[in-house]
Amino acid sequence: MSDQEAFQRQLPEIVSQIVRSIRETPFVHHLDHSDLPNHGQVIRILEDLRVLLFPGYYRQALHFANIEYFVGDMLDSLFGRMQREIAGALRHTDCRECREPTGEALPRKASEIVIEFFRRIPRLREMLQRDLQAAYDGDPAAKSFAEIVLTYPGFVAITTHRIAHELLTLGVPLIPRIMSEHIHHRTGIDIHPGAQIGERFFIDHGTGVVIGETTRIGNNVKIYQGVTLGALSFPKDERGQIIRDRKRHPTLEDDVTIYANATILGGDTVVGYGSVVGGNVWLTESVPPYTKVLIEAPKQRFVTKQVSASEA
Amino acid sequence: MSDQEAFQRQLPEIVSQIVRSIRETPFVHHLDHSDLPNHGQVIRILEDLRVLLFPGYYRQALHFANIEYFVGDMLDSLFGRMQREIAGALRHTDCRECREPTGEALPRKASEIVIEFFRRIPRLREMLQRDLQAAYDGDPAAKSFAEIVLTYPGFVAITTHRIAHELLTLGVPLIPRIMSEHIHHRTGIDIHPGAQIGERFFIDHGTGVVIGETTRIGNNVKIYQGVTLGALSFPKDERGQIIRDRKRHPTLEDDVTIYANATILGGDTVVGYGSVVGGNVWLTESVPPYTKVLIEAPKQRFVTKQVSASEA
Amino acid sequence: MSDQEAFQRQLPEIVSQIVRSIRETPFVHHLDHSDLPNHGQVIRILEDLRVLLFPGYYRQALHFANIEYFVGDMLDSLFGRMQREIAGALRHTDCRECREPTGEALPRKASEIVIEFFRRIPRLREMLQRDLQAAYDGDPAAKSFAEIVLTYPGFVAITTHRIAHELLTLGVPLIPRIMSEHIHHRTGIDIHPGAQIGERFFIDHGTGVVIGETTRIGNNVKIYQGVTLGALSFPKDERGQIIRDRKRHPTLEDDVTIYANATILGGDTVVGYGSVVGGNVWLTESVPPYTKVLIEAPKQRFVTKQVSASEA
Repeated sequence: MSDQEAFQRQLPEIVSQIVRSIRETPFVHHLDHSDLPNHGQVIRILEDLRVLLFPGYYRQALHFANIEYFVGDMLDSLFGRMQREIAGALRHTDCRECREPTGEALPRKASEIVIEFFRRIPRLREMLQRDLQAAYDGDPAAKSFAEIVLTYPGFVAITTHRIAHELLTLGVPLIPRIMSEHIHHRTGIDIHPGAQIGERFFIDHGTGVVIGETTRIGNNVKIYQGVTLGALSFPKDERGQIIRDRKRHPTLEDDVTIYANATILGGDTVVGYGSVVGGNVWLTESVPPYTKVLIEAPKQRFVTKQVSASEA
Repeated sequence: MSDQEAFQRQLPEIVSQIVRSIRETPFVHHLDHSDLPNHGQVIRILEDLRVLLFPGYYRQALHFANIEYFVGDMLDSLFGRMQREIAGALRHTDCRECREPTGEALPRKASEIVIEFFRRIPRLREMLQRDLQAAYDGDPAAKSFAEIVLTYPGFVAITTHRIAHELLTLGVPLIPRIMSEHIHHRTGIDIHPGAQIGERFFIDHGTGVVIGETTRIGNNVKIYQGVTLGALSFPKDERGQIIRDRKRHPTLEDDVTIYANATILGGDTVVGYGSVVGGNVWLTESVPPYTKVLIEAPKQRFVTKQVSASEA
Repeated sequence: MSDQEAFQRQLPEIVSQIVRSIRETPFVHHLDHSDLPNHGQVIRILEDLRVLLFPGYYRQALHFANIEYFVGDMLDSLFGRMQREIAGALRHTDCRECREPTGEALPRKASEIVIEFFRRIPRLREMLQRDLQAAYDGDPAAKSFAEIVLTYPGFVAITTHRIAHELLTLGVPLIPRIMSEHIHHRTGIDIHPGAQIGERFFIDHGTGVVIGETTRIGNNVKIYQGVTLGALSFPKDERGQIIRDRKRHPTLEDDVTIYANATILGGDTVVGYGSVVGGNVWLTESVPPYTKVLIEAPKQRFVTKQVSASEA
């Protein structure tokens, strides 16, 4: 009996075991629900929106004589796809807490969201131009704007965040998080779409950055790799359930700089304007404006071995 | 002479130099060996296994009336592909230490491994349902199960780990590591397929997490971004070669929580049940049950500059 | 009126707003410039170069009898593509500071660069063979060379760095950075193409590693995840602009080991040969040869709760 035949003989039994397991684990099958947004489609929409925001950086042979046709075509193509995925996200039904419109109203609502999002694109582009300038001014290794747009992970992350945050503000569930986690995967920068981030924001290097859902960040803020803006603890209600709606993450006022691997925690923690938080600092209380918080370097031992030539 | 012609004229000499270099660097050509598993095929298998584990989350138009056909088709398609790649992995010959069956026995052995793996899928799905519940319970930002399955890097990582660990347990070389490093690339979470991880495991955020090969983790454990469960040092044998088989990584008992960027090292280090290890802690010794290990905050200096209105 | 009709009616106005926004934000459109290198093409070139460097690891059915044809074909295919992208990079005109040849001279210059790069491939392969040996010797979890080539993020990163650094040395702008940031995305390891790295270099785990543009690293150096080799501060010129050309990142001499999450900053900081920098150390001054720098463990509090059986 060939391997294939041996397998075929056992297949019906294996299938019925797996199907039984699917029936018995309702949380991990998601059958008989309306379809969820398609992950691949959402990522393609995100990529196309990035082309729309920075057209000549990503598409060749674009110039002022043909840009109008390009923009029109792109919006037309995006409209149907965004409407379909957003309607799917609005419809997804294992959302435990949110109230949603149903049935016929959903595509209409999705359509209105897409159109309103398109109307906000010019403002998004202004924000991103300021972010780009901040990246160039803040990094002596930057050789050109093109290098930043095409290669900087911090710039990819803030671009995606501004798109995802705008969709979240317009009431779109799930899709903003799919976008931000896709970019988290690509860049190591984890910005929850709910975070509110002001103008001229720059993340240098970026790997390991975590910016929580209820963080608020002012203008002209610069942060480095490994910075966590996180929650201090999760208060529970009288039934022992985590309370899900409250400010859990810190506030950074204007003109703040946070150096690598600093950790700032807590919803009541405010870093005042113009302040600097040094590398590795662990901060769970507020800091007044124009303050430098520096770690007192932990004592380090230097041990020099006497080595003979043969050992070396 | 055109650029292309200039290049063509030099091509034979360049080719012969590179071919000579290939002959002279045996470790970096891998020619005249049996074929290695194909990286792209292994990743496609991993993606299809994820669809099999969470069918309705990833595929549209699935319901209880057609799920049996879907599962049967998917297993049938996976069988041949998994058998071929696993046989290739068993055959790969620069493995320096392991003893392997050879020749005709390999496809038969690969076939048996695939069938046994399929039989373990129901148990895998139960484990993952418990991991999913743990993620929802542990994160106040989680809005729905769908959000976790589709977007949480920690959940992608534990799903892949449970698949890769099962294959490793069944004696498959190389392929589990290709899977886990693919997901390390995508999520920044580095779990060696050899690590033993109990039920209801949750990694929040996750970037920078490292879980070493001989780590043992109990049930209901939660860890945050940047946590390292690593080796303390590598003892060498009398010939100066690193000793490769011994427990080098720590043990976490049930109900342990490890906060961000804590580092726990050493094969004899045990964190007792119910214990909590605080952020940034550096731990190389065991901790009894129900203990909190907190870093005594390093002294921090707060320097407030007096600034005049014009400076501000 | 259908959703589609409602959208069509508003489309001209939305398009004209976005086109106006494009005219008004010159930094974020890059229209009417010569075409930039194509990101996807650059990544495909990088993947093909990796196959050329490690042929039998990535391609099936290669052996000594056909390797010459394979190498010839691959070089022929790469030549035209590399010439085109490199010419595009040389031409890109928002580079603010660099002086470039123009017009007809660019394809010729690009062609010469590609040929010289091909001539350096044998030396690149020798370097990578030494890196591979260093990875195997340094990691007790490594089971085979194939495992390292196919799966280790640190090995993917140094392979890409050696390609990107060689192109940078040959005067190619932008493309080396596109390559290194692509791999930064994939591995979490951020090595600026300008960094100078000696033989037998090994990065273990790697997530979060940052190696700055002007870093110099000797032979036999090993670093772990989360290590930053960074800049201390950015001196500004009399106009308040950051000074862009000077050594800002540290020097590691031969035989240095840097453990996880250590941070070493500053262009004048030299870690002497044979020295070891412990985990979490923060270093901004030079260290003599054969020195161990260890953090004096911050005081940690162990709090053991007395728990009753019912609580447990």
